[in-house]
Amino acid sequence: MDIQPPYDATLASVAARRAIRAGGLRVPTAGLAPGFVQANLCILPAADAQEFLLFCQRNPRPCPLLACSDPGDPRLPALGADLDIRTDIPRYRIWRDGALTEEVDTLHAHWRDDLVAFLLGCSFSFEEALLAAGVPIRHIEQGCNVPMYRTTIATAPAGRFAGPMVVSMRPMRPAEAIRAVQVTSRFPAVHGAPVHLGDPAAIGIADLARPDYGDPVEIRAGEMPVFWACGVTPQSVIASAKPEFCITHAPGCMLITDLRNTSLAAL
Amino acid sequence: MDIQPPYDATLASVAARRAIRAGGLRVPTAGLAPGFVQANLCILPAADAQEFLLFCQRNPRPCPLLACSDPGDPRLPALGADLDIRTDIPRYRIWRDGALTEEVDTLHAHWRDDLVAFLLGCSFSFEEALLAAGVPIRHIEQGCNVPMYRTTIATAPAGRFAGPMVVSMRPMRPAEAIRAVQVTSRFPAVHGAPVHLGDPAAIGIADLARPDYGDPVEIRAGEMPVFWACGVTPQSVIASAKPEFCITHAPGCMLITDLRNTSLAAL
Repeated sequence: MDIQPPYDATLASVAARRAIRAGGLRVPTAGLAPGFVQANLCILPAADAQEFLLFCQRNPRPCPLLACSDPGDPRLPALGADLDIRTDIPRYRIWRDGALTEEVDTLHAHWRDDLVAFLLGCSFSFEEALLAAGVPIRHIEQGCNVPMYRTTIATAPAGRFAGPMVVSMRPMRPAEAIRAVQVTSRFPAVHGAPVHLGDPAAIGIADLARPDYGDPVEIRAGEMPVFWACGVTPQSVIASAKPEFCITHAPGCMLITDLRNTSLAAL
Repeated sequence: MDIQPPYDATLASVAARRAIRAGGLRVPTAGLAPGFVQANLCILPAADAQEFLLFCQRNPRPCPLLACSDPGDPRLPALGADLDIRTDIPRYRIWRDGALTEEVDTLHAHWRDDLVAFLLGCSFSFEEALLAAGVPIRHIEQGCNVPMYRTTIATAPAGRFAGPMVVSMRPMRPAEAIRAVQVTSRFPAVHGAPVHLGDPAAIGIADLARPDYGDPVEIRAGEMPVFWACGVTPQSVIASAKPEFCITHAPGCMLITDLRNTSLAAL
């Protein structure tokens, strides 16, 4: 099935996807096509997709679903007219029965007629809004990945998909935390408002210096940790569910869409 | 100068003001005319009013100005067509050179052609919105006044009017605090979002159990203090400035306006 014109080839997002598709950009996508929404990818066979779709519907904070393909169709017209999910991400991971089996550059050898692609909002969008509002973000300052933690906050299960919520953490001064609640509340399609702030133990986090994913960041005097529902939650839930086949993006290698971050603002 | 019809005599706010004007309601106004905006009163001579207006403009969080009268005019048509500021508040306080000299039921004996009335938003409006959103408010549960504290947060001075911000405090669980930021952010005309949450010492509060105004409230395990700019700030600033003459409402005896709380929502 071929991708059809017309589409706006002048968009930075289109240019970035074409460069990725041509094989020239096998790199993490942070900083590419600024202002455009980037998305987490999860691909499941149709047999599992129904339950996972229900899981996303029941857990919109950690699983903000931007688009879901038709079975076997690699296109996602809601996210870009010329988009092909088999080629437009720099690097993919292939999982079998819950175990990572390989990393690949395209999905041509793995595509099946029953595969359904889920694209989930990611925190890049709200971080852009935070920076624009003058709220500093520590892991960006430190040039590392955001620290992420498994919590005691339960997700709402859907069949085999169940498990604890994973959160990302950004340390802030209290006035910045208040501003961050305001700014990120405008973006429910990309995790929305924080789920917690203050005492990490209240959500089952024993040691902020030892994140379960990502890198630890400095927490300065007078700062409090602020926690958002994280897109690693669905990855963690899928890993536990051990579907026979699954494809995800490689860490940091997101799908660049034609949606603008500003278009996701609820108001 | 007489108050002119027409006005909507069917409003609960009009009925409450008429009862107060007739002398039948010399009581605190909390709970009267639910849904209508209540306001703090400060009356100053025109010579001081100019500077105080500037102070309000520079400090909208503690001094959210809903209306300001013309000199000598006891009417406030923006807040109610039949409103007379000399009679429509249950009890007034008269201050001379910064000292409280008497409490009175009407201002007929004190009114002057150079007096300017300032009406400032009060937290009753956003507390109604918090309760409607399911966020419990401890001092309402306990049936006492909200605890208020002088802080080390400086206000922006205007001439003689200067001094520290006074804040009110409501203890909440973190998820409630996040919801409270969202809900109160919609109401910039009545103090808006919190100015601080968490560590009281960060804003110069040594002991939450000993408020500077109001009553202490219980803070339960897992709760954090959440602080809003408070309408006691202008009263405190005026007391320091010691104007030759000033009139305020007696504590808890507010002006009931015809504005609906919902009309103050910014979005």
